Amino acid sequence: MPNETTKGLLMVYTGDGKGKTTAALGMCVRAVGYDWPVCLIQFIKGSWKYGELKGLKRLEPNVELHVIGEGFVGIVDDNKSFEVHRSAAQAGVKLALEKISSAKYPLVILDELNVAYTLGLVTQDEFEQVLAARIETQHLVVTGRGAPEWLIERADLVTEMREIKHPYQKGILAQKGVDW
Amino acid sequence: MPNETTKGLLMVYTGDGKGKTTAALGMCVRAVGYDWPVCLIQFIKGSWKYGELKGLKRLEPNVELHVIGEGFVGIVDDNKSFEVHRSAAQAGVKLALEKISSAKYPLVILDELNVAYTLGLVTQDEFEQVLAARIETQHLVVTGRGAPEWLIERADLVTEMREIKHPYQKGILAQKGVDW
Repeated sequence: MPNETTKGLLMVYTGDGKGKTTAALGMCVRAVGYDWPVCLIQFIKGSWKYGELKGLKRLEPNVELHVIGEGFVGIVDDNKSFEVHRSAAQAGVKLALEKISSAKYPLVILDELNVAYTLGLVTQDEFEQVLAARIETQHLVVTGRGAPEWLIERADLVTEMREIKHPYQKGILAQKGVDW
Repeated sequence: MPNETTKGLLMVYTGDGKGKTTAALGMCVRAVGYDWPVCLIQFIKGSWKYGELKGLKRLEPNVELHVIGEGFVGIVDDNKSFEVHRSAAQAGVKLALEKISSAKYPLVILDELNVAYTLGLVTQDEFEQVLAARIETQHLVVTGRGAPEWLIERADLVTEMREIKHPYQKGILAQKGVDW
């Protein structure tokens, strides 16, 4: 864990612009520079593509990635019931609680947890349990659009990634190395 | 270089919130996942600290980092003249032109170029020359608060990292693994 003078921060990357998960990946690079073990839990399966997953391998064994969830929720080809998604999210919460309270990781990243919460897959009570498990010197990062007000209230650092301009506005498709 | 169907994007991460350079680091992770060579030029020396520099080493040899500049400009202990900073920035522009036009890098990141521009260290003409050197399939990322309107106009993707909350508002000092 970080030395005793470290004050762990609760950080939130939210908003509808690109850069939230990308910044979380960047935090992994920085943490690895300190030889910290990092636990990264991805709450929405399928939101990460080949490039990210492969690139992260270069940061192993420091960065430990856990992909939970059952893929996108409510999208056209989503034929799973709410209960299936909900129980996957619950497994994610359980894992997050275990990992955070193990106190082994100076940095824990909960990718797209805000989205899982907004979709009703994670309850406020569960979300708060996860936050409460954090020890004083541990940094916790929560990403995803739609961060709830009570989370922003509680956080030490909140950045809203605001979309000023997006390639789809020009009719440009998702691009390798940027979107996947 | 990316395959022929790739459309290179001009991307801008701006705003006063945390996450701009962090997102650029994250883009390096993604690019390395595709085994792309990445050229990263840091225009404001000293803005990167130990963790980032050390962590990036894990992404070598794909990611090539060039630190240019003469340290922070106009800060209390800055005893260098404007001309010294200006000529360092010019060297950075020259390097960026070389690297971009070599067409060797599917991804080029110009970290804090917006700041160097705002400080008057890089002229609009130089900035535009750099953008013009880009080939069709190359992604170019420009970071730094205060992106000029004409750059936003020209970009394909612009995210404003908006500071909603920062630890210093609570009197918390810069933290290892987050700020350095």
